[in-house]
Amino acid sequence: MTNTPTPPSPMETLQKLRHSIDNIDAALVAILAERFRCTQAIGELKSLHKIPPADPKREAQQIARLRRLATEANLDPDFAEKFLNFIICEVIRYHKIIANSSESSSESS
Amino acid sequence: MTNTPTPPSPMETLQKLRHSIDNIDAALVAILAERFRCTQAIGELKSLHKIPPADPKREAQQIARLRRLATEANLDPDFAEKFLNFIICEVIRYHKIIANSSESSSESS
Repeated sequence: MTNTPTPPSPMETLQKLRHSIDNIDAALVAILAERFRCTQAIGELKSLHKIPPADPKREAQQIARLRRLATEANLDPDFAEKFLNFIICEVIRYHKIIANSSESSSESS
Repeated sequence: MTNTPTPPSPMETLQKLRHSIDNIDAALVAILAERFRCTQAIGELKSLHKIPPADPKREAQQIARLRRLATEANLDPDFAEKFLNFIICEVIRYHKIIANSSESSSESS
């Protein structure tokens, strides 16, 4: 009698896939933290030199590039665009907070 | 006379930071594509074994873990939570599409 390996149950397969997702999410958080360090530096630079927080031309270029990269990676380009818009909105919100807080501090100093 | 290097202009600094963001976004797209491969496999597994698309207990665990990882990485945990909710909503939407399309194909076959 040979020992044939038991195929994994659906719940075992689900657990394995979820483990991969957890690893991927840890990587996403690390890379998003690095992205925020960059956008925070941009926010401070823009605030210091009175450059407007939003830049529609740059955003359009980013979206077009990301859609192309998504298509190449077999990721839905609409999802990639929604994802970038979501991040850009958050970043602009932070830039405005930085700009407002530096205005308040210049008013108060 | 010594040649002192000219400090970069604000626009040069902005360009450099944007270059880093473009690199980071390419990495984000690649890793999101891999995450979607995993969630797509989960969607198919759930559809095949009639497991419900949403799993509130698992989502609560993911959110708590991501908030902790975000805090460690100096990333706003509220942003990390919003980000994960955004991705989970998209994933559930895809799972429902898969479940509906497999229902339609079993009806038709």
